[in-house]
Amino acid sequence: MNDAVPPVSPLRVFKGHGTENDFIVIPDLDGNLDLSDSVVRALCDRHAGIGADGVLRVVRSANDPVGQTMADEAPFFMDYRNADGSVAEMCGNGVRVFMRFLQSAGLAQTQAMIATRGGVRHAWQEDDGAITVEMGAAITLSEIPVVWLAASACWKETAIEVPNPHVVIEVDSLDALAELDLSHPPLVEPVRPEGQNVEFIVRVAPRQLAMRVHERGVGETRSCGTGICAAVVAAATRDGTMFDDSTWQVDVPGGRCQVRSRPDGQLLLTGPAVLVGEIELRDGWLAADAC
Amino acid sequence: MNDAVPPVSPLRVFKGHGTENDFIVIPDLDGNLDLSDSVVRALCDRHAGIGADGVLRVVRSANDPVGQTMADEAPFFMDYRNADGSVAEMCGNGVRVFMRFLQSAGLAQTQAMIATRGGVRHAWQEDDGAITVEMGAAITLSEIPVVWLAASACWKETAIEVPNPHVVIEVDSLDALAELDLSHPPLVEPVRPEGQNVEFIVRVAPRQLAMRVHERGVGETRSCGTGICAAVVAAATRDGTMFDDSTWQVDVPGGRCQVRSRPDGQLLLTGPAVLVGEIELRDGWLAADAC
Repeated sequence: MNDAVPPVSPLRVFKGHGTENDFIVIPDLDGNLDLSDSVVRALCDRHAGIGADGVLRVVRSANDPVGQTMADEAPFFMDYRNADGSVAEMCGNGVRVFMRFLQSAGLAQTQAMIATRGGVRHAWQEDDGAITVEMGAAITLSEIPVVWLAASACWKETAIEVPNPHVVIEVDSLDALAELDLSHPPLVEPVRPEGQNVEFIVRVAPRQLAMRVHERGVGETRSCGTGICAAVVAAATRDGTMFDDSTWQVDVPGGRCQVRSRPDGQLLLTGPAVLVGEIELRDGWLAADAC
Repeated sequence: MNDAVPPVSPLRVFKGHGTENDFIVIPDLDGNLDLSDSVVRALCDRHAGIGADGVLRVVRSANDPVGQTMADEAPFFMDYRNADGSVAEMCGNGVRVFMRFLQSAGLAQTQAMIATRGGVRHAWQEDDGAITVEMGAAITLSEIPVVWLAASACWKETAIEVPNPHVVIEVDSLDALAELDLSHPPLVEPVRPEGQNVEFIVRVAPRQLAMRVHERGVGETRSCGTGICAAVVAAATRDGTMFDDSTWQVDVPGGRCQVRSRPDGQLLLTGPAVLVGEIELRDGWLAADAC
């Protein structure tokens, strides 16, 4: 028995994904939904609910206590929740799906300013249909040396903040990448009290990376938008080509993204955003137990 | 890029579950859908699609080459597919969800005869809303002694066919059950060439079991209908109370079911069946790749 009660009945939502990082999009333009942690968990439950990595509530910025501070600049606020119900600042894959929803619903054409807990983000559609998001300029390379405890001497590690903490570890070959056991968090020192995402990358060609990622509190995932950015920052910094306006390609298990490091310090993340379907939830499904 | 093309556009489906064994229900009463393996896999993909353990296509028996042989007795055929697209004979949790869909769509009242590849099954709704399914009488206890290679001397094992092959292993305590590592297939001898499901059970009270299950080709699951029946057959047979018309309760990670072993040899499986929501898939979602 789930003690959650659906906030609006029937609730209509969408499922979408960006490089297989998947989300339930809840249109709530007027900000009427009481989206409790338990409702988010029930929706994201992959067996008893619909299943997703997180929820993107779509609300007019003026109708949300957080969004209204950005309402002059960005008409819609992305209320992003992790699958466990907790709030999160930003999600690079999520913003693309959010943008695709705005387009699909006729709320945006080819570009939009989107309010997030991490600030306002500009998103637009490329000619090939992919969506690009400005991921921010606040990239700082940690001065702290990091060590991957399972590493041999040839590995290189870099700590990055995008702004969530990342450690990027370069490995030698696609075989080495494929053989990594990411069923447990990689042991990295120093241990950050807040945890960190760990990206393992291989250079497969100039400005082209393959990557796997272990996300803190989640495990290995099919993709991680900020992790893709961190990987490019680490590789370009080692090359001495950061902010040269070139475009990198990053292949993750869930698909392919591009990252451009603009001379003004802004990172642009480009990738797919797919709406899979629209879902009308059954009255009372959250309260269903023995029948 | 997925090479699958949606068979009907837009495709409308349902998601439902029985003790968290989840299914995508596809109404196709006229039997017009060309439900290819790749479409099933795309639908069941938990990140790029909707996500489920399998698909239940609902077709009038007269409109299906397999179903029409049972059309006189059972008006609807359950075309059950595993998440990898392969066909399967029967699924105890799936039949309950199938029955719930028939009720929801106005195609059945409180009971129905349902055609499956494993034969016709009678299903009906109990007073509390739960659904009971006749799982068949073809229960055979294997004469072959089975050994669980990780076992100490106190474990008891029984091989059962319901009709898919099962090995039921009784462990000592709920703690022992919780501590089992089911991330890999349990090593049981003799090895059956077709594989087998392995159920681990604990007796928590008279006629009450707790169970975890490892399904061949899948891994640990939240529930397995035939496994629940096999567990009761094993326990009741050891007690010498098989076919005494009593009702057993079995708790699995995804919920609770009841099994009654009727004097005529028929096993009745009772449990929840929940429809979560109705999904309208987007035109072209299967073909979506970079956008």
